[in-house]
Parts: sequence; C-alpha cells; structure tokens
Amino acid sequence: MINDTNVRLGKTRSVIRELFEYGKRRKAEIGEENVYDFSLGNPSVPAPPEVAEELHNIINATDPVLLHGYTSAPGDPRVRQIIANYINRRFSLSLDGDCLYLTCGAAASLTITFNALLNAGDEVISIAPHFPEYKVFVNHAGGVFVPVRAKENTFMMDINAISSAITPRTKAVIINSPNNPSGVVYPESDIIGLCRLLEEKSAAFGTEIYLVSDEPYRELVFDKSIKVPYVMNYYARSIVCYSYSKSLSLPGERIGYIAVNPAMREFADVYAGICGAGRALGFVCAPNLFQQLIAKVYDKTSDISIYKRNRDMLCKALTEMGYQVVPPDGAFYLFVKSPESDAVAFAERAKKFELLLVAGDDFGCPGYVRISYCVSPEMIKRALPAFGALAQSYGI
Amino acid sequence: MINDTNVRLGKTRSVIRELFEYGKRRKAEIGEENVYDFSLGNPSVPAPPEVAEELHNIINATDPVLLHGYTSAPGDPRVRQIIANYINRRFSLSLDGDCLYLTCGAAASLTITFNALLNAGDEVISIAPHFPEYKVFVNHAGGVFVPVRAKENTFMMDINAISSAITPRTKAVIINSPNNPSGVVYPESDIIGLCRLLEEKSAAFGTEIYLVSDEPYRELVFDKSIKVPYVMNYYARSIVCYSYSKSLSLPGERIGYIAVNPAMREFADVYAGICGAGRALGFVCAPNLFQQLIAKVYDKTSDISIYKRNRDMLCKALTEMGYQVVPPDGAFYLFVKSPESDAVAFAERAKKFELLLVAGDDFGCPGYVRISYCVSPEMIKRALPAFGALAQSYGI
Repeated sequence: MINDTNVRLGKTRSVIRELFEYGKRRKAEIGEENVYDFSLGNPSVPAPPEVAEELHNIINATDPVLLHGYTSAPGDPRVRQIIANYINRRFSLSLDGDCLYLTCGAAASLTITFNALLNAGDEVISIAPHFPEYKVFVNHAGGVFVPVRAKENTFMMDINAISSAITPRTKAVIINSPNNPSGVVYPESDIIGLCRLLEEKSAAFGTEIYLVSDEPYRELVFDKSIKVPYVMNYYARSIVCYSYSKSLSLPGERIGYIAVNPAMREFADVYAGICGAGRALGFVCAPNLFQQLIAKVYDKTSDISIYKRNRDMLCKALTEMGYQVVPPDGAFYLFVKSPESDAVAFAERAKKFELLLVAGDDFGCPGYVRISYCVSPEMIKRALPAFGALAQSYGI
Repeated sequence: MINDTNVRLGKTRSVIRELFEYGKRRKAEIGEENVYDFSLGNPSVPAPPEVAEELHNIINATDPVLLHGYTSAPGDPRVRQIIANYINRRFSLSLDGDCLYLTCGAAASLTITFNALLNAGDEVISIAPHFPEYKVFVNHAGGVFVPVRAKENTFMMDINAISSAITPRTKAVIINSPNNPSGVVYPESDIIGLCRLLEEKSAAFGTEIYLVSDEPYRELVFDKSIKVPYVMNYYARSIVCYSYSKSLSLPGERIGYIAVNPAMREFADVYAGICGAGRALGFVCAPNLFQQLIAKVYDKTSDISIYKRNRDMLCKALTEMGYQVVPPDGAFYLFVKSPESDAVAFAERAKKFELLLVAGDDFGCPGYVRISYCVSPEMIKRALPAFGALAQSYGI
C-alpha cells in the first residue's frame, strides 16, 4: 500500500554495504587485524589540518545568527563567487557565482541535476563500469538508465557503442573521471570524440543532449602528467557535479556543488530547473558552516600521496602474482579481472582468505572485482599473502 | 524539453522570498532602520552558547576520519539512541534508535516521508493555513495535495471538514502544531478527535491512513500551561518529522529527524520505505558534525523569551489599534485578519507604510496576513506607529 519501489530500495542493501556488514561480524569473530576489508570507498586519510583550524576560526569570528542561518537556496553568493573564481583560474573560463548551486554532496548534485533535466521516459547513458547508484537516481527522476560497456581491458569509453545507444530520447550522458570503480581517467581525445558525437546526434535528432560530469575524484590523480579535461572547455551543454567528500575527506558532511555551463543557450531554464528540483526534493540549502569552510579551503586536499603509495604497492604485487590489473590513474579503486568468469563466485572464494572484494556486477561490469585501497598501507601489507594464496588456489 | 515542472518551480519565487527581496531593495533606498520587515521565518535569536562550545570540543576531541566520515544512512546509531531516550523520557514511550532516521532538516524529513508513503494519485490532507511548500513536496512525490480550511477565527482543526475530505485515496494527514502561520497549538481533545476519525475512516475504507506531525516549532511554546500532544501517544500509524532549525537556531545547518511509531504493524516496511526514499532522493546521511552536536545539545533551546516578549508586545498593540488577532500559543508568527477581504491588496498598502507582511493566500487562507515576529524588539517598537497609520487608513 505504501511506495513499493522505495520499500524495496530500503530493504535491498547494496552489495558493498552487505559485504561491509559481513566484515564487521567477521572482525568480531577473528580479530580486526585478520580481516582485509577492501569494500568501502570511505577516505582513510584525515582532512587537511586547515579544516579543523578554519572551523574553529569561523565559529569564533562569525555572528551565530548569520553563521547558522539560512543562505539563499543556491548557496551564499560570496562562497559561490570564490568557487567560480577558482574554477576560472584553473580552467580558463569565466563563470560567475550564479552558474553554481551548492549542494549537500555528490549524490544531491546528481539527483537535483537529473530531476531538472529529465521528463518521464528520457534516457541517460552511462559508461559501465559505473557507480551503482546512478541507476537509482535516474529512475527516481523518471528516467531510463542505459549503461554502455567500456572497452574490454582498458575501460576507456567506446565511442561506437555510445553512438549506437543514443536515441531521440537520450537526454544526458553521464561520465565519471577518474572513474569509480576502474580508476581510469578519460584522455582529452576521448572527451573531444564524445562531445563531437553528442553534437552530431543532437543535430541529427533535433534534440538537446547534456553532458553531466560527476567529479568527486577530480583531485585524486597521482601523476602530474595526467590531466582530467574540464568538460566546459569542450561542450556547451555541460554540467559539472562536484563534491568535496574525497578531496577534503569530508564525506559525512555533505558539501559539493553543481556548475552549469553558461555557454548553453538555455542556461536560464536549466539553472531554474536545478533550483526547482532542489526545492522539490527538500534541499533547502547546503550546510552553512561547511559553505563558509569551503570559502577558506577550496584549493586544499588531503594528503593523497598515501593513496598513490597504496596503489603502487597493490598494482605491483597483484601483477607479479599473475592477476590482470589495469593500473588506475586516479580515485582509490583498483578493478581486477576475476580469474573465473563469475566474479561473484571469485569474491565468495576471496572471503575464505579473509579478503573482502566487491564483485563488479552491480557496477554493470561482471567478471571483475573492485578493490578499494583507501585503507592503511599496513593492512595492504598484511593482505598480500592472502592475495597470493587466493591466486594459487586458481593455479595462476 | 527539460523538466517543465521544476523549471517553473525554480522561476516562481515564493511570495515570501519576493517580499524579502523587495525589502532588501527598499532598505538600500531609504535605510535599513526605516523598513519594517516581517517577511521571513529566520530565527533572530542566536544558538545557545553550548552550540559553539560543543562544536569546538567535538572538533578537538574526535579523529577527523571518524568525525567527517560517512555515518550509516539513517544516522549514527549512538546519536539516534540518545535522541530516542530523550523522546522516551519526555513522552513516556519506548522507542529505540532504530525508529529514528536523521535528516538534513524538516524539508528533507517531509520529502522523504512523502516519497516513502505515497503512490501516484494518493491524497495528503493538510489543515489550512499551512506551510506553502507542503504542496510542492506532496506533488513531487506523485501525490495530490488536499487542503482543508481550519475553523474561521480560531484556526483550530475542523473535524467535520476533514472527515468530508477523506477518501479511499487518502494516504496521510499532515498537521503542524504550533502552526506556521497561525501560531495555534492543537489541544489534546482535537488530536484525540482526529485520531478517532482516522481510525474510523481507515476501518470503513479498509485503508491505512498515516498521521504525519511536522514539528519544527515544538519547543517554541510560550506558556507552561500549553502542552503540545505527542501523536505517538494517540495513534499507531504516526510519524514525527522534527527539525532543530528553530529550537536551536540552526536553520542553515540542516539537521533533524524522522521518528516512526513502532506501534504500527507495518513498521518494518515504512522504515524501509524511508531508507529507500532517502537513498533515491540523494540524502546519503545527515551532516556528521551536526549529528555529533545534537548528541550533546538535544535538550537545549535558544532563548525563546525574546519571541514571547515580541508576541506580547505586538498582540497587545495591534489589538488596541483595532486589528483582529488570534493570540498565538507558539512558533513566531501572528496571523492577522485583513481589514479588507483582499489580503494581497492589504499587504500592498502596508508596503506604503514600509511594513512587509505576507498575504495568507499562499498558506491556503486568503483574507489574512502573516507577521513573522522573529525580529528585534526595537524594530517592532519602531514599526508600531506604521501599523497605527495603516489601521487609520482603513478607518478602523
């Protein structure tokens, strides 16, 4: 009698959560240090010290009626302008603060964007492997989720496959680079190819197709030579969904933004749609204290060198053991080919070695497992013999 | 081509916002102190001193990886249990923490609840005057909003009118006591009468009807003799949507909760529906720092004596001037009868006297204006001659 879709959604725990809960039970049984939990994408590195310092400063220096009061729904205009200026300096753009809408984090950025863009039955294309909640968010907004497989072995986008998937009902393509769960960064040539395709298809169908870039991992790139292209430099109908959860290790505080490219002709409508969707979904404003914090630390990051060391240690060791690994450019995930075709069975067997790995099926990519390496380097060291024994059990 | 409903919602500013923006322009023209702005329900009293103290303490004492990390989606179990214990002590109940779901404030509590309960076409009854956004939230969740007028002059609920409005499609009744905009508190006899009616109608139609109590103003009651009944003591299918925005003067920080009555048979489904709706709408968890804060200050309030003094001063003066005023029991609003039948025209004329009052039409109650007295007592004193001149202009 009540809403069945949401009841089911509330009852089905994601595979990731399920595994995490199993891990908690198992740790209680055999000891914390004997379970190698690679299930969650929860930053393991603390926020940079400026976060605590500035929180103290802001609380001390600001009239509490202002500090804890409502901001305008899109966020404090001063904070938005500071973020816009920073985007402009980094990417040679000229946004003003009114192109930004501050949100309660990446998930909110995405649900608000989809609710602004989609009418019932509109299609959203995503490149698999993809973050599993995309489907939930698109469906709630009335849309149809259309995953398109990335190229086998490299996880780069397959422009031909995307081209075949675009229809007159395609309203948006969502990309996520660095990617969860593969860690790949799409190079500029791919972004240019995708944007050209979207322009051609929009013209052919007489439709508008939006490019939504989900960027919680933008700052988590480990080699200076790797550039993450900024979609606004390539495509007018682009929207960037950003979050400070991973870059500043603040996932529980829910702070991020939507940036709408002012180059699109219908900018005013899209921005109004975002304001309307935010209102209808019940997001009154982003948490004010964290808005003020971002104005101070917008260009800081946590110490991501730990993630880089974790990546390098794991990639080297797993490759030497015979696992097939695509070395990730960023984020804190490693997507590893399952030695048997059924990755769910592989992840089950890994549990016998106390290794908690997430099967790729929910990411739209069976045959692989995701390893979250936002963990302590010590745990990785302790886990390596288990990875070795697991490989041996397959005779690789 | 994009979502028209949300574009329109984003473009139509609420009457309250419109007036507030007019006020800002007018203040720039003739000076801040010469405009009497009674438009917004933004707390004017600072958060209690414990808020800043505890924020500093929590930041100093907690590992930042834990403090700023994700909590479970319904909120930190420890914090939920503390709040449940407090509810139990105050209202002689026996909730446990798993009856609570922490949210990003009152609006989120409501959108999540409606998305959990409603299927397309289900009806939600509200008592007018009502908070205007109820309609937006119900409609977004696919529901039909059914306002039922309160009794003329007293703004108490009209049980006969509610009875006539209940149909087999009625899924919920939402009440708000103390009420925005009338300030009335429904006495126990009314709550008992409403609950009896809902039981009769559910039985007659073979349906489940939920009672949703929206309680951001629960702590803002000015006389010890006035009790705000707790719906869980009267009705099994009850859900309380609570927010700390007004009680702790933290509206910009977005922290509140949903409490589901464990006495309802289908508790597990309703709670799962709330978890699922929270997930689909993009609320990952309530801001963690403010979850931890609430665990420390859950029983504190701002100094509400200032609101009481404002109420008393305004009620007395306006009544002496000949205005028809129902003295409010709580919240920080006064709902005043317009001297002419068209309250929009009255509010327009008030602007000539630099008085910013909100016409009741958007609250589903034409013929009245709302005065928000969460302002400085000094502004009220300065405004009284203007109220007098406005009354004289009507010859009252």
